[in-house]
Amino acid sequence: MNLVSEAKAHGGTQGVYSMHSAACGTEMTFAVYMPPQAANGPCPVLWYLSGLTCTHQNVMDKGEYRKRAAELGLIIVCPDTSPRGDMVPDDVTNWKFGKGAGFYLDATEAPWNENYRMQTHILAELPAVIEQHFAADLSRQGIFGHSMGGHGALTFALKHPDRFKSCSAFAPIVQPSTADWSVGAFERYLGKDEESWRRHDATRLIEDGARFDAFLVDQGTADSFLDDGLRPWLLEAACAAADIDLTLRMQEGYDHSYNFISTFMDDHLDWHAERL
Amino acid sequence: MNLVSEAKAHGGTQGVYSMHSAACGTEMTFAVYMPPQAANGPCPVLWYLSGLTCTHQNVMDKGEYRKRAAELGLIIVCPDTSPRGDMVPDDVTNWKFGKGAGFYLDATEAPWNENYRMQTHILAELPAVIEQHFAADLSRQGIFGHSMGGHGALTFALKHPDRFKSCSAFAPIVQPSTADWSVGAFERYLGKDEESWRRHDATRLIEDGARFDAFLVDQGTADSFLDDGLRPWLLEAACAAADIDLTLRMQEGYDHSYNFISTFMDDHLDWHAERL
Repeated sequence: MNLVSEAKAHGGTQGVYSMHSAACGTEMTFAVYMPPQAANGPCPVLWYLSGLTCTHQNVMDKGEYRKRAAELGLIIVCPDTSPRGDMVPDDVTNWKFGKGAGFYLDATEAPWNENYRMQTHILAELPAVIEQHFAADLSRQGIFGHSMGGHGALTFALKHPDRFKSCSAFAPIVQPSTADWSVGAFERYLGKDEESWRRHDATRLIEDGARFDAFLVDQGTADSFLDDGLRPWLLEAACAAADIDLTLRMQEGYDHSYNFISTFMDDHLDWHAERL
Repeated sequence: MNLVSEAKAHGGTQGVYSMHSAACGTEMTFAVYMPPQAANGPCPVLWYLSGLTCTHQNVMDKGEYRKRAAELGLIIVCPDTSPRGDMVPDDVTNWKFGKGAGFYLDATEAPWNENYRMQTHILAELPAVIEQHFAADLSRQGIFGHSMGGHGALTFALKHPDRFKSCSAFAPIVQPSTADWSVGAFERYLGKDEESWRRHDATRLIEDGARFDAFLVDQGTADSFLDDGLRPWLLEAACAAADIDLTLRMQEGYDHSYNFISTFMDDHLDWHAERL
C-alpha cells in the first residue's frame, strides 16, 4: 500500500492510498477515513461506492461524512469506480461505460475482462489491505453508495448477507440490466446472455432468491434520472414480494448531486452504526 | 444577476450566480446558500472569503457549512478571490499574485488597477445584489475567511466595525505587508509606498487605531505556512496592545486544508450566529 496523502480531519485522519490491484492489473486509488476511536482499537468498516464518472475523491470532498463518522467511530472506505491508467481499454466518448463506469462487476468479455474486475477488487483485494494496514474490525462491515454505487452496494449486500450487516443507498440504480444508462455497459462487460446479467442486478437477485435483512434508500424527487435510470419502485416491488424490509424515502425537491447525498449522509451513517 | 446553478441542500438552496462587475470590469461568480428560514423572512448574512488559488467553489464543495447554517438560519455568501477572464492581466507563473490572488484590496498600480478591485466588488457591488435578489437582512452581517480570505475578513471588519457584527478566521494571513507570500503582491497592486499597505493589513490597521469587538481565530499547528506566512502571534500581540478580545485556538495536528476548515466550521458558524 502506498501513501498518497493524509490529513487530520474531525479528530481522525482522512487518508488517500493506492495499491497494485492484481484483479484490475493496475494501480488502484482509494480513500480511508479513520475515526479518532481507532486509536483505542479496531472500528467497524463502512464501504461507500460512488456513482458514474466519480473517483474516490467526490465523496471525500463533498459527502460531508467525517463529522458524524468521527462521532460514531466508523471507518469509511471509498474505492474508485473503475480501473485506471493509459493501458486500460476505454470508450472515451461514453461516460456510462469504461473508466469511471466499472459497475462493480467482473467483466467476462474481451477486452474488458483484463482490467474491469471491480467486484474482485472491492470484495477480495481491498478488504485484505484494509485488514493489514488499519485498525479495522472486518466482522462488522456495512456498505452504501450512490447511483451506480447504490447498485454496487445493494448487489454486494445481497450476494454477501453474512459479510455485510447493513446496507443503504442514495438514488441507486435498482435494475441496471434494463435501465437506459446501464444496459449497454452490461452487454459489453458481460456479453449478450442476459441470464448472466441477473447476478449483478439487485431486483433480479431478489427475484432469484437472494435476501437481505433491511435496506434504507433515499431518492430525490427532482432527480433527472429518476424515471429512466433509477426507478426505485422496481426495488420496492421486489422487496415487497420477497418480504425484505425496505425503507424508501422520497425526498422532495432533491436532485442527483452531492447536495442531496450530503443532506442525508448523517441519517445513513446512523442507520449503519445502529447495525454495526 | 445570472443563475449558474441551484440545488436543494440541507433543506435550503445552494446557488451559484454571476453578475457584471463594474469594479472589476468582468463577469464575477459567487455562491449563496439560502437556509430554509429565509422562506419566512430575511436572514442574517455571513460572508466567507476564500484563500489563494480558490474560487467560490472550494468552500462550497469542501467547507461543510450547509448543515449548521440551515440549523442557525444563516445566509452564506462566497465571492470569488479575483477578477477572471481572458482580458484580465495575470502572472500565470505566480499563484500568489493575479488571478486567484486578489488579496481583497483595490489595486492602485497599472495595469492591475483596471480589474483588481475586489474590495469594491465585495463591499459595495455584491451587497447591493444580495439585497436586491435574496431575503437578506443586511443590518446583520458577519464575515469570515481562510488564509488570504482571513486577511480579507479581518481587514474588512476592522475597516467597517459598524457593518460587521462578527468576524472570525481560519489560519489568516495576519500581517500580509511583511509575509513572504503576500509582500510581492502588495508591491505590485499598491506600489512601493509601504504606507498605503498598512490600510490592508490587519495588524497595521490595529496599530493605526482600527478596532473590532472580538475575533475568533483557529490555526492548525501542522500548517506548513504557519511560521513564514501566517504568524498568528503577530495578531495576538496587536490585539493585546489594543485591548481587542481575540480568541486564538491552536489546533493540534491540523494542516492548512479544508480538512482543517471543515472540522471547525460549526464552531465558527455558532460564533457568528450568537452575534447576529
